[in-house]
Amino acid sequence: MKAKVYISYKEGILDPQGKTVGGALDSMGIQGIEDLRIGKYVEIDFGNISKQKAEEITDESCRKLLANPNTETYHFELED
Amino acid sequence: MKAKVYISYKEGILDPQGKTVGGALDSMGIQGIEDLRIGKYVEIDFGNISKQKAEEITDESCRKLLANPNTETYHFELED
Repeated sequence: MKAKVYISYKEGILDPQGKTVGGALDSMGIQGIEDLRIGKYVEIDFGNISKQKAEEITDESCRKLLANPNTETYHFELED
Repeated sequence: MKAKVYISYKEGILDPQGKTVGGALDSMGIQGIEDLRIGKYVEIDFGNISKQKAEEITDESCRKLLANPNTETYHFELED
């Protein structure tokens, strides 16, 4: 079982890294980007456990460590 | 048009941040994780452009700035 976790800033939270990278792309001549935001992408490998157990572990990991509840949101997908 | 870009380390490249976070979760009592790897998740907003144009811009951005071609791989999805 595997989890793919996507963590991004909440709406309204400034993302200075994303703004900087967006500006850099523009100054490199890559036009057409209106907004760019950078978050985290976490891949978790579990052994041979149930989908329900993997969901519990992933959610607990996000709540307790991976995501900052004040500024970030997360969602995840599970796959075999 | 919007792009969601996922950047992760190539197989065989050490991910010290992922290892550290995996160890931290274990020491917090969250058991069952065999491996954890941390990458980047980039959301790009385009204006009203074609899917083909968005694909070109996203791929060029990844090749030229977002991903390190020596150590990272990327893939992306486009959506309206």
